[in-house]
Amino acid sequence: MEHVDKIVTAGVVITMNKTYDVFSGGAVAIHDSAIVAVGPRDTILSAYQADEVLHADSEILMPGLVNAHTHLPMTLLRGLADDLRLDVWLMGYMMPVEREFVSPEFCYQGALLACAEMIRSGTTCMADMYYYESDIARAVATAGMRGVLGQTILKFPAPDAQSYEESLAYTREFVQQWKAHPLITPAIAPHAPYTNTEETLKACAALALELDIPLLTHFSETRLEVEESRRDHDMPVIPWVNGLGLLNARVLAAHCVHVDAGEMRVMRRQGTHVAHNPTSNLKLASGIAPVQEMLDRNIVIGIGTDGPASNNDLDMFEELRLAAFLAKGATGDPTALPARQALEMATRMGAEALFLDDITGSLEAGKRADLITVAHNPLHNFPRFERDPNAVYSQIVYASKGADVVNVMVDGRWLMRDRQLLTIDEAAIRAVAEDYARRIDAFLIAREGNVLSKLVAIGGLEQEESFEIQVKARVDNDEIVKALLQNHDVQLVKHTHYRQYDTYFLFKDAEQGRVRYREDETVTATGDVPAVRSRLTYTMPTKEREFRQAILLSRSQFIAPADRPLRFYREYFQPDSERIVEKERRRWHILYKGVLFYINLDALQQPAYEGYFLEIKSRTWSKRDAEYKSQLTSEILDLLGIAIDQTLHTEYLDLSSQEGSK
Amino acid sequence: MEHVDKIVTAGVVITMNKTYDVFSGGAVAIHDSAIVAVGPRDTILSAYQADEVLHADSEILMPGLVNAHTHLPMTLLRGLADDLRLDVWLMGYMMPVEREFVSPEFCYQGALLACAEMIRSGTTCMADMYYYESDIARAVATAGMRGVLGQTILKFPAPDAQSYEESLAYTREFVQQWKAHPLITPAIAPHAPYTNTEETLKACAALALELDIPLLTHFSETRLEVEESRRDHDMPVIPWVNGLGLLNARVLAAHCVHVDAGEMRVMRRQGTHVAHNPTSNLKLASGIAPVQEMLDRNIVIGIGTDGPASNNDLDMFEELRLAAFLAKGATGDPTALPARQALEMATRMGAEALFLDDITGSLEAGKRADLITVAHNPLHNFPRFERDPNAVYSQIVYASKGADVVNVMVDGRWLMRDRQLLTIDEAAIRAVAEDYARRIDAFLIAREGNVLSKLVAIGGLEQEESFEIQVKARVDNDEIVKALLQNHDVQLVKHTHYRQYDTYFLFKDAEQGRVRYREDETVTATGDVPAVRSRLTYTMPTKEREFRQAILLSRSQFIAPADRPLRFYREYFQPDSERIVEKERRRWHILYKGVLFYINLDALQQPAYEGYFLEIKSRTWSKRDAEYKSQLTSEILDLLGIAIDQTLHTEYLDLSSQEGSK
Repeated sequence: MEHVDKIVTAGVVITMNKTYDVFSGGAVAIHDSAIVAVGPRDTILSAYQADEVLHADSEILMPGLVNAHTHLPMTLLRGLADDLRLDVWLMGYMMPVEREFVSPEFCYQGALLACAEMIRSGTTCMADMYYYESDIARAVATAGMRGVLGQTILKFPAPDAQSYEESLAYTREFVQQWKAHPLITPAIAPHAPYTNTEETLKACAALALELDIPLLTHFSETRLEVEESRRDHDMPVIPWVNGLGLLNARVLAAHCVHVDAGEMRVMRRQGTHVAHNPTSNLKLASGIAPVQEMLDRNIVIGIGTDGPASNNDLDMFEELRLAAFLAKGATGDPTALPARQALEMATRMGAEALFLDDITGSLEAGKRADLITVAHNPLHNFPRFERDPNAVYSQIVYASKGADVVNVMVDGRWLMRDRQLLTIDEAAIRAVAEDYARRIDAFLIAREGNVLSKLVAIGGLEQEESFEIQVKARVDNDEIVKALLQNHDVQLVKHTHYRQYDTYFLFKDAEQGRVRYREDETVTATGDVPAVRSRLTYTMPTKEREFRQAILLSRSQFIAPADRPLRFYREYFQPDSERIVEKERRRWHILYKGVLFYINLDALQQPAYEGYFLEIKSRTWSKRDAEYKSQLTSEILDLLGIAIDQTLHTEYLDLSSQEGSK
Repeated sequence: MEHVDKIVTAGVVITMNKTYDVFSGGAVAIHDSAIVAVGPRDTILSAYQADEVLHADSEILMPGLVNAHTHLPMTLLRGLADDLRLDVWLMGYMMPVEREFVSPEFCYQGALLACAEMIRSGTTCMADMYYYESDIARAVATAGMRGVLGQTILKFPAPDAQSYEESLAYTREFVQQWKAHPLITPAIAPHAPYTNTEETLKACAALALELDIPLLTHFSETRLEVEESRRDHDMPVIPWVNGLGLLNARVLAAHCVHVDAGEMRVMRRQGTHVAHNPTSNLKLASGIAPVQEMLDRNIVIGIGTDGPASNNDLDMFEELRLAAFLAKGATGDPTALPARQALEMATRMGAEALFLDDITGSLEAGKRADLITVAHNPLHNFPRFERDPNAVYSQIVYASKGADVVNVMVDGRWLMRDRQLLTIDEAAIRAVAEDYARRIDAFLIAREGNVLSKLVAIGGLEQEESFEIQVKARVDNDEIVKALLQNHDVQLVKHTHYRQYDTYFLFKDAEQGRVRYREDETVTATGDVPAVRSRLTYTMPTKEREFRQAILLSRSQFIAPADRPLRFYREYFQPDSERIVEKERRRWHILYKGVLFYINLDALQQPAYEGYFLEIKSRTWSKRDAEYKSQLTSEILDLLGIAIDQTLHTEYLDLSSQEGSK
């Protein structure tokens, strides 16, 4: 009898080897970190003597699950903001919070929480992409799990680097530090083609080849990404990155939702592997990846949960069940992606996707002992039919739960026994998570409590506070300005013509101020519209000072270019109500007694008003200057022949609630 | 202080009332079967004194989940046959096994297993459709759950009735028996429009109105169903059944995957409720129901698991998560069906779908106490953010699991406490399920062990055993038969002309015999094809007897009309290989010396052969008759001038492995 460290016997052993051997009443012999033998229970027990024998005879023994794509520390952002559109979710919540909170400690603790959850639900191996990957490696190694860990590279500053050169230097160091570790495979992770440049992608590929490490990335997650690739590079994503030589590295690409037949051929030829993330793709409404077609083309595909902020868990049992169901629904073929093949994607083929199939993904002599046992006797597994050899796969994929996992071993070491975690202090990690929740809540509550700080949080805002003297009056005649321009005190600087479409976001709490989203269409003399500009303006609720004749001193506008669509701002600010103002604006920049004034002559389409509104505006910076300009404004009104009863306080957006034309 | 039976306090109370009140630190007071009060913990504890106080302060207290569509006893068929096409699954497996096994006891025990699983995963109320519904009611009442239970009505004989009149009589009795029960709402369940007739549907509607009971059914599950409705009734499903008056009853219709805007308007107007079954619709590749559009049109929709044979579990947490994800994926809008709305469909709106919203579906004073507590502290629920009021819904829908359910109460009675079932003996029901598994396995193994019995199992087979004398020879000349017809011993009875397309299913084990699927195209003198006939022929592997000149006595063919497509039989019989034979056949029915013979002159297209094959065949019934006909056959060969070396043993399908044209 040969001596080994451990023997595990089980009611059923699913090997997921290439001949799909299943042993009803089977066992595995383990020595050190490796599987020594797999077979019928009696055979193993009579051939090997072990220090420790675990009889899991009411359980199924199978390879641990491989999570082919995730962002471990994002566990700490789980449930922070859901049911939002991708840009609002990412730019409104994830990125501002990441900018504020992501640190080596955040990454270590978040990854540790993730590992605890993954061990509980039967995952033994994962591919990760995030920041401070060295701290993530520390967490994964502490947990005792196996991982391919990719350090993120971006074209813009990241939480862990000011530039991509800094990230590359970090990666080089990270790889040196971890390359010899038995559980960790360091990797480089250019986030995506669209968040990188030709230069950064080429540098990543070169480093991957030089250091002989895998390259993790995201490809073709959304239709928009592919459209933009066609616009910018005249081709979809795969041929573009292939042309840059990126696919010469050992690539594992998440998503690949929008890839065509030609791209799949390139991926097959280049040996590009895919991580399929069905939950995330549904939740963010990215689409449904053509998994069955990729499998038919012999592309290697694993299954991933994606980050827990877009899932919202790390449960591979849910993920592989959904993968199997969704493939049937998407193809209209209920025989698509049958249970055994789905399980293969989450085990042996998943390991292959991570370039680890020589050491894990199936129960075979010589491979590392990465295995789990799954309770066979919960009610949802009854009855248990034995006629159909696929029934055991169907049971695991269609009915078993993450919570059914009882024991987990990685590299020959127990990480969970009888549902007790052995490498992670659950109470401690819960406390850390709750502490982050409190701090992140506080950060967001402070921000959300104030429309202005929400505006600042999404960046791009030039906090430009301006004071203006302004007066407004109704006029019937659009010739009125022409007459003014004849005056010898008046000098025309510039004339412009716009069509302006304004959407005001209003809040019940008037103290919140207002946000205006404006699209300016410049109109030329020939009536062409050569340019459209979008701007966001925030107006503080501060009371205005009124001078004579409804001449107002207004203040505190903050202006930013609006580089995202109206819809984004609507979903981000969630106004209590909205109001639309549309107008045709002719603007004269004039000097009156040497002082710059804007004369706007506005024809309102919405709210619809006959005639015109004339505005006189001038920027100011001091009380004395404001007084002086108020006086000048009054004089201009006189020159225009506008009587005091023609001036009005009301802003255009408030007109809708008044009488229409007088 | 008012006295009540029970108080439950919890970390968070989600009421799911119409104002979506949530109490962080809340409680519910319960007296007898009803909720007396819901509110903040301190308020409840200071206003009520209870015999029993449960402090579930690390749990979420919420309404029990409502499963809007299932077939409870089909738990006993879970995992029996998966990854098959609908017809193979239904007609090849479910229906033959149901014909053999469904009994009052099967329904009672299967429903009890289902109830145990549902209680464990937080369901308190369900809508069921199956056979022997009175026995299902017995199980549901024993379990202490609430249910709307529909007795199935079909146009053909069912396991519990020889005719639909018998089913109606059963329903009437069933309703009388259970109508007063506090937990059971008896209902009538015409299975679907396509499995009923105009007459049976009208009778069901009339009975539902007369007895004032809900009517449960399936509408528009597959595209095929809608196409057939258009073909048969010139309209899709909803207007047809509406025209019959079916929607005058209180209808809860499962699926509604393929309904258009006009149909939705009819459903809204008629108050037709919908049970959405996302898992089943994906798994059977039926399609994706337009849930968001139906909700936008104010149609009442619940969420159902469908039967556990097409899911494969009864876990409403999985179902409502998938409903939320799938709506986003299907509409391309990640804000579609947000978590709170999904939970509403599984609670208050689900109860409304079952016409029970006056008594259950939310935690409100006056409603029955149907509630669950869900552990708030598993790792997949960390961290827990509190800023966003929707975060608690997101946690329940996107991250919580059925296994997180700790306590379950229905009608004021505990059904599960601290994960221990109180009304069902789990060990006993497991043993019953295993016993059924063994018997069903044995039944199917016997059937599957033999191609002929598989053929018998799907019905429609006329077991017609025939013996034939036959000889075959290669001939060059297609005029050869004309000459024969000149002979004074020969009388022409009939001449026919076919094109025949044969697919042979072959099995490695030759003892299994062969199955031939043949399409016969009748060709008229003018070359038209007025009719196509499909037939299935099973040939037993029995050795044939050879007379002189390769004249064979063959036997044991079983012939059945093939009323399902070739693809069905392929997936059902799963042959090890297939072979195709295509030929043009001219057939002369002749009398030779007063005995009927068939002369076939076949031109083979596949396998392609030049010239013709001539066959002489005659049915026989005894050894002596066979000897005599063998002699006559030999004479006909002489008349035809066919030499002995022209005859051959080989069947057409085996020719492909020989030389082509000689």
